[in-house]
Amino acid sequence: MRTTVGIIGAGPAGLLLARLLHNAGIDSVVLESRDRAYVEQRQRAGILEQGTVDVLRAAGAGERMDREGLRHDGIELRFGRRRHRVDFPALTGGRSVMVYAQTEVCKDLIALQLKEGGPLLFEAEALAVEGAESDRPAVRFRHGGREDVLECDYVVGCDGFWGVSRRAIPAESARVYERAYPFGWLGILADVAPSHDELVYARHERGFALLSMRSPSISRLYLQVPADTDAQTWSDEHIWDELERRLETDDDWTLRRGPVTQKSVTPMRSFVHEPMRHGRLFLAGDAAHIVPPTGAKGLNLAVGDVATLARALEHRLRTGSEELLDAYSDRCLRRVWQAERFSYDMTTMLHRAPDATAFEERLQLARLERIATCRAAEADLAEGYTGFPLD
Amino acid sequence: MRTTVGIIGAGPAGLLLARLLHNAGIDSVVLESRDRAYVEQRQRAGILEQGTVDVLRAAGAGERMDREGLRHDGIELRFGRRRHRVDFPALTGGRSVMVYAQTEVCKDLIALQLKEGGPLLFEAEALAVEGAESDRPAVRFRHGGREDVLECDYVVGCDGFWGVSRRAIPAESARVYERAYPFGWLGILADVAPSHDELVYARHERGFALLSMRSPSISRLYLQVPADTDAQTWSDEHIWDELERRLETDDDWTLRRGPVTQKSVTPMRSFVHEPMRHGRLFLAGDAAHIVPPTGAKGLNLAVGDVATLARALEHRLRTGSEELLDAYSDRCLRRVWQAERFSYDMTTMLHRAPDATAFEERLQLARLERIATCRAAEADLAEGYTGFPLD
Repeated sequence: MRTTVGIIGAGPAGLLLARLLHNAGIDSVVLESRDRAYVEQRQRAGILEQGTVDVLRAAGAGERMDREGLRHDGIELRFGRRRHRVDFPALTGGRSVMVYAQTEVCKDLIALQLKEGGPLLFEAEALAVEGAESDRPAVRFRHGGREDVLECDYVVGCDGFWGVSRRAIPAESARVYERAYPFGWLGILADVAPSHDELVYARHERGFALLSMRSPSISRLYLQVPADTDAQTWSDEHIWDELERRLETDDDWTLRRGPVTQKSVTPMRSFVHEPMRHGRLFLAGDAAHIVPPTGAKGLNLAVGDVATLARALEHRLRTGSEELLDAYSDRCLRRVWQAERFSYDMTTMLHRAPDATAFEERLQLARLERIATCRAAEADLAEGYTGFPLD
Repeated sequence: MRTTVGIIGAGPAGLLLARLLHNAGIDSVVLESRDRAYVEQRQRAGILEQGTVDVLRAAGAGERMDREGLRHDGIELRFGRRRHRVDFPALTGGRSVMVYAQTEVCKDLIALQLKEGGPLLFEAEALAVEGAESDRPAVRFRHGGREDVLECDYVVGCDGFWGVSRRAIPAESARVYERAYPFGWLGILADVAPSHDELVYARHERGFALLSMRSPSISRLYLQVPADTDAQTWSDEHIWDELERRLETDDDWTLRRGPVTQKSVTPMRSFVHEPMRHGRLFLAGDAAHIVPPTGAKGLNLAVGDVATLARALEHRLRTGSEELLDAYSDRCLRRVWQAERFSYDMTTMLHRAPDATAFEERLQLARLERIATCRAAEADLAEGYTGFPLD
């Protein structure tokens, strides 16, 4: 099997890259180890930055998003039973975000790819990337019970933190930056209208809570829990009680409860692999970097990576110049580090660290107070939340 | 001995409070354990916020400051051999700071106090504050070889972190917040014109460095050193060499060297004592809170405290209402915690922590990069540096 660009992984990074290349007249093959139903159902992020929305629209993948997505012009911060709203358009010169689940983005891109694009193989497990340093890199993979080889001009690893792509890069050619957090998020999906029309980020002595939504009738809520928590040890009632406590306010706001349809724990990690390229192998999205979910940067970084990479590949194939491919890693990493900083700051400002000193807890409150009282600090947050330039 | 307000400590907090009370027609006595020469020579901070300048002027203590002080409209950040200037007036709607040493502020206030004010006793060592919870608090002190008692309506502890005032507050009536840093500042005074016309804050892999000045012909420079460093183990040449390395730039900037006239190591600590009042005993300045020197908030917080307290005491003595005295601690602590946050952030962004991970070092650079490229983040820094409102 041969193609110009071999893409490992049919998450949002791989699917969108295939779409962008297709639109530029470049052929590709996407290999995905899971089946279609799995990919279309795994719950991930749900906040699209302005830049992400723009890329999806320009790629011709924004039709249902524009119809069903919810435009959000702000978030609410809760601390000390107080509520403070951050008004995005007023603070950023008109920017906002879109609530539209990653699963829906994937469904839209899968449908487009199967209808118009190149091969997209499900249950095709990449085993190794070979010859990344040569002119003819290849992906060895297993599909339909037998091994095969995908020969490429370029290979792009969009196979997430646990994928095989990154392992093809020798340790001595890379530098890894990492931080684990001693807590995770217990997330639920519930069949109930959201109790607030925008996302609510709550800092509480008992731990962080987040009120979010998937649609006008489906709530998505999260609780900070210890890193090794088993979601099944939390009964639905226990979860609702705890959400109610952490989201409490001084006024008469109330939390609506409903049937919980899904329950799981997400670990929290910061991770960056530098560089994001080795020879003709490029890494994009979670394969190269992980952020904790506070601030919803993961999906948006993946979109930024593949938008930059698609342009660079097109430039190479049209002009023969490697210039943009050579700039890919540095260009993405500038944005990645800003997102790492933003996600780290949002996380540490809002979560209860088990070993936090009283001094550190008061610093958290001083940071929230600063955002609530200083327009410059609030604008810094709003600009970070609505997105770093895709350049 | 009797007075209305007994003030312990003739640093800037105690001296300015005595001056403000004098101007309001309220009598006070200041007790200072050291002699005059010591107080007038100990090197401390040298950056006055706009609000501090305004208070000193209004107190009639700004004449020499306005003649000899240097107005500074910005600072320079250095990192990765790059230089980034932060323009205060452009970012804050016209605010700036004044370079005028704390020693000079003290000299001016001492001269005024001796000429026009109430008693200011040097070498008068406060031994204890007694009866803070009663209507008749007193300060027991030693002066001229014998013990005496100063009976007061109110006692104000301006005697710094190591003073006796805070010890008069029972532990069960207070909460203490604290953080020590594993590094200090080796500071020198040198008889040489400053090598840059504004302060330079440098983040370097070898550690933080700060270029500052006392006057157009006297430089003040600092190096981050381990917390337990003995200043005498650093030769002058070694200090200049290290400053040169940490302040290096990509362009042709050079460091001017000159005779070192003073050399000492300052420890770094964050500390807050809540509340700042116990009965008729009030704490102000370093007696109640300490910040690390990065960002120069210590002296300015002290001025904010006594400006708030002088107004509250005047209100009490004119109207009989305790309202402003009751609000004193909360009002100051709001500003104190913002200054603690600012000083902590400036410190951690610029210093090399001995146990820092590679991830944390990259976060530092991402923070500096953010300030250099995002106007909102830069304005947040500029507003913090030029000062929090004195209300």
